[in-house]
Amino acid sequence: MTLAHGYAAQAATLPLAPFDFERRALGASDVAIDILHCGVCHSDLHTARSEWGPTVYPCVPGHEIVGRVTAVGDGVSKFRVGDLVGVGCMVDSCQHCGHCAEGLEQYCDNGFTDTYNGREQVSRANTLGGYSDHIVVHEKFVLRVSHAEEHLAAVAPLLCAGITTYSPLRQWKVGPGHKVGVVGLGGLGHMGVKIAAAMGAHVVLFTTSPGKKDDALRLGAKEVVVSKNEEEMRVHANSFDFILDTVAAPHDLDAFLGLLKLDGTLCLVGVPASPHPSPGVFRLIAKRRRLAGSLIGGIAETQEMLDFCAEHGIVSDIEPIAMAQVNEAYERMLRSDVKYRFVIDMSTLRETAPA
Amino acid sequence: MTLAHGYAAQAATLPLAPFDFERRALGASDVAIDILHCGVCHSDLHTARSEWGPTVYPCVPGHEIVGRVTAVGDGVSKFRVGDLVGVGCMVDSCQHCGHCAEGLEQYCDNGFTDTYNGREQVSRANTLGGYSDHIVVHEKFVLRVSHAEEHLAAVAPLLCAGITTYSPLRQWKVGPGHKVGVVGLGGLGHMGVKIAAAMGAHVVLFTTSPGKKDDALRLGAKEVVVSKNEEEMRVHANSFDFILDTVAAPHDLDAFLGLLKLDGTLCLVGVPASPHPSPGVFRLIAKRRRLAGSLIGGIAETQEMLDFCAEHGIVSDIEPIAMAQVNEAYERMLRSDVKYRFVIDMSTLRETAPA
Repeated sequence: MTLAHGYAAQAATLPLAPFDFERRALGASDVAIDILHCGVCHSDLHTARSEWGPTVYPCVPGHEIVGRVTAVGDGVSKFRVGDLVGVGCMVDSCQHCGHCAEGLEQYCDNGFTDTYNGREQVSRANTLGGYSDHIVVHEKFVLRVSHAEEHLAAVAPLLCAGITTYSPLRQWKVGPGHKVGVVGLGGLGHMGVKIAAAMGAHVVLFTTSPGKKDDALRLGAKEVVVSKNEEEMRVHANSFDFILDTVAAPHDLDAFLGLLKLDGTLCLVGVPASPHPSPGVFRLIAKRRRLAGSLIGGIAETQEMLDFCAEHGIVSDIEPIAMAQVNEAYERMLRSDVKYRFVIDMSTLRETAPA
Repeated sequence: MTLAHGYAAQAATLPLAPFDFERRALGASDVAIDILHCGVCHSDLHTARSEWGPTVYPCVPGHEIVGRVTAVGDGVSKFRVGDLVGVGCMVDSCQHCGHCAEGLEQYCDNGFTDTYNGREQVSRANTLGGYSDHIVVHEKFVLRVSHAEEHLAAVAPLLCAGITTYSPLRQWKVGPGHKVGVVGLGGLGHMGVKIAAAMGAHVVLFTTSPGKKDDALRLGAKEVVVSKNEEEMRVHANSFDFILDTVAAPHDLDAFLGLLKLDGTLCLVGVPASPHPSPGVFRLIAKRRRLAGSLIGGIAETQEMLDFCAEHGIVSDIEPIAMAQVNEAYERMLRSDVKYRFVIDMSTLRETAPA
């Protein structure tokens, strides 16, 4: 066992604060990682505050992890000490079901192990995440990072926001000649725009904030539509192959379903706390449209995404913060006051370690 | 022009009654058809009563038409006098858009012409349907019937209920090795069961009526699940490739979404008058599931369906009625008191023709 330093919520109503805990001893298949940066995802906040079902406390959030390998178990063949690596939303899965065998660990029949507030596969111990100085992870759930080291902080959000948008874009075979919509320009949406554009699609960004137009165009969108403007929306009726909806707040899905062409898909990747208004059945029937959902991505696909992003020079647009700023960052995130992801510089953790 | 005898609603609140009207003169591409039988679809009732947007009166319903060709225009090459033919929900479409060119007239960009309460493509005249002694239709929208003549009445419902279920089953490539659900055992559902079984799928029928079990098994289902029974439903979690939902009344979609395996589709073919409860986003995301809709089928696919049904000995289970019984049939249909489709014997129209 090794002593880890991190930040934890001790209860739903308490701010995150310094917390020491133990990481498991390095197993034969494990990789020990010195965490250099960790992205701040909305899920971190929801879980820290127990807004998504009961959270186990203390809770150390963080599942957009990049760092350097400091030790490997005897059976590890994929990684060596010194490698730059990433860890995303999963640190294990049952490894026995058909979906695990197919590399679709995110759909594991027996439930994958979340990087935090999850349960270890054998011990069922609560998992503690990336707001910490190091982590020990089975090599199957460790990703290779081939981006240049100076971009490492901006790579961190790819491990969740990147794969969450990349996976459905690949699943629905987005590419040249496709007209693709991205709804919402936040942590997920800005990655969706970059990745869909790199895949060769004609990307249209939908936002309720006219002020985001220049940013969206800079990130790779060819058009920006203010979704509250019915006139602007109408121009795009029946024209989209695929729309990726990244907005987790309840909103009218019909407005976007109506923009899909025959056999088009509106794919949701955000889970609202209360339901969206019920989608109109006739919107679906009239053009054989589909409403779908997608959950992060498998490990093999996450590696593919990291390699794709490295090849295309894609990273996240980030605002680096110190560990001690995380509670303030949560408040700003709630106000959508971030372009487009906070990433914690873990070297700042030393400044705040408990006495 | 020719004088036609039929039954019409003169207003939303009036019962159907005898009505004479004129059919257009036979054009070069037209086929004149002596109507022998016409199925009674829920849409007929909704339209006669102006429940789906404003209906144009007088309204002659009926879009499950079978009959015999009595005359063909000079340019008609597909049909000869004496042929047994069918006409379904469409009698024309723009014939200029991409969907029409692909044989997907039901998704015509400019709106296909409904067989009744529709608008002719050029004249924009209101169309009058199959509750009548004859009809004149462009040959492109006339289907060849190859079933034995003694089954003709039971073929009529294939023109709407048959194609509405066949098309999505084909679109989602249902076949041997697939576990397929059909929700609801009515006019649409009983055709869905027969067709999906003939395609080689393992068919499970979902019903709220335990009394329908024997019938469902006789029609081709391998299992029957009472959907109100949570225990019975739970056994089937995450196991279906495809579920065809034929129920037009608002109901809980989540119960069926949860039965789909990874990438499975729940396809709606009924349009409820008020919305279904909003489907849970997490149900979609958790297994990359899809909620879709499908609208009847194109003309080429309708011909394919008729040929498939003839080859597999599939017809509808019907209760023949006389024309004068149609108002009573509507009331019974509202009570689901029909197994599984009323079909009007049009020879009975002569008995009720206006003086």
